[in-house]
Amino acid sequence: MNILLCNDDGIHAPGLRLLRDTAREYGEVSVVAPEYERSAAGHSITLADPLRTKEIYHGDDFFGWAVSGTPADCVKLAVCALLDEPPDIVLSGVNLGSNTGISVLYSGTVSAATEGVILGIPGIAFSLCTYETPHWETAAGVVRRVLDRFLHNGLRPGSLLNVNIPNLPHGELRGMKPAGMGKSRFVEKFHKRTDPQGNTYYWLDGELEILDRTDDIDIRVVGEGYVALTPIHFDLTDRDWLDHLRDASEHTE
Amino acid sequence: MNILLCNDDGIHAPGLRLLRDTAREYGEVSVVAPEYERSAAGHSITLADPLRTKEIYHGDDFFGWAVSGTPADCVKLAVCALLDEPPDIVLSGVNLGSNTGISVLYSGTVSAATEGVILGIPGIAFSLCTYETPHWETAAGVVRRVLDRFLHNGLRPGSLLNVNIPNLPHGELRGMKPAGMGKSRFVEKFHKRTDPQGNTYYWLDGELEILDRTDDIDIRVVGEGYVALTPIHFDLTDRDWLDHLRDASEHTE
Repeated sequence: MNILLCNDDGIHAPGLRLLRDTAREYGEVSVVAPEYERSAAGHSITLADPLRTKEIYHGDDFFGWAVSGTPADCVKLAVCALLDEPPDIVLSGVNLGSNTGISVLYSGTVSAATEGVILGIPGIAFSLCTYETPHWETAAGVVRRVLDRFLHNGLRPGSLLNVNIPNLPHGELRGMKPAGMGKSRFVEKFHKRTDPQGNTYYWLDGELEILDRTDDIDIRVVGEGYVALTPIHFDLTDRDWLDHLRDASEHTE
Repeated sequence: MNILLCNDDGIHAPGLRLLRDTAREYGEVSVVAPEYERSAAGHSITLADPLRTKEIYHGDDFFGWAVSGTPADCVKLAVCALLDEPPDIVLSGVNLGSNTGISVLYSGTVSAATEGVILGIPGIAFSLCTYETPHWETAAGVVRRVLDRFLHNGLRPGSLLNVNIPNLPHGELRGMKPAGMGKSRFVEKFHKRTDPQGNTYYWLDGELEILDRTDDIDIRVVGEGYVALTPIHFDLTDRDWLDHLRDASEHTE
């Protein structure tokens, strides 16, 4: 099995090294990742500039390709130019920080897996829900449990699995739980400051607010100590509104 | 009515000037847009850098704020810092080039309207489907028809309306038609080249391939000479797979 790894924290991030060490137990692993952090890259791609690659070695060990682009660029370039044959799966992460609720839209980690799905390759995105001291050993254990369960069957074409891991010692995890993407928004403010030259600048700050009353959403499930397994797809059509528009069109014609 | 305008072609793009001229017939208009082109920005936002703004004048007329960020950054900054009160609607475009099918995921034009929707403000994204000689007068006419129909009622919280306009003389338009976001992919290749210093670089190229057999999708509707009206939402949960995962979890517990 050929496994392609990517992330949005950049090719030197510890979560990517962990994912590579773990994924090598399951197949042939290739790494193609942004040369520096591209968090919140969303599903952006690079059209107006060329992409460059750098081969990264750890001692004598070829670690992977660093790319001067976004996570989605990396997966495109890997599949269409760098790899001899398309991978069987794209794994992304392990991201530092949660990708739950509306964050999924902004997430470069998720977008790497999304790009795989668009190209017809199943994908899994992994995030460890903390910006503080990470329980990496928990993340490694969860990656193994998820790959054991989903790698050879259980993934669906056209969708990806978004995995959010609570930052707890492995023994304190309460299990894995399927969960929806929670309706949420950021309550945001911009810090308005003045630089040493007297020019104004703004810096974004914000907190996630849950707008969802249902229990089994990603944000709540992680808060309760479960690994959240959220299937994500990309047919963005609002079918209910579309049906309404079609009815209205028939009445006016 | 307070109307916020944004785009991804940048604050100096002709499609934004057209949208401003037209929208001013309907209410008070503010423009907050990227200072240069951010096509394919997807739903990226700027976290690691500050944002700066520039006031843009056309002669004595204050045109709007240019922002050193992405379309989503612009809408956030407008709503949370620049405007005295939140707008009643976000209009984005008029983009040069279609935003149909899977392109919706990569589109900065759509993401400006998306950001409005996330903040609780309805949004409409407009795209004129050409990169060649644009029929701007057609685009202006369609913006009017869409605003006449949807501005005061008919928009839904949590969703946006994605409008794709065929590049035809206005008299040749066949009408407006509700349409789904067509399942599609890019058939991509990277041009591998060598720069004057002897270094390799890659440049993305590709064509949209339709994978959808249904008739009433955005790509086909535009091709037939209709304006495509596509309602877009952001609950990405794959409910069918989620139900299956929940069933499977119950059986194993």
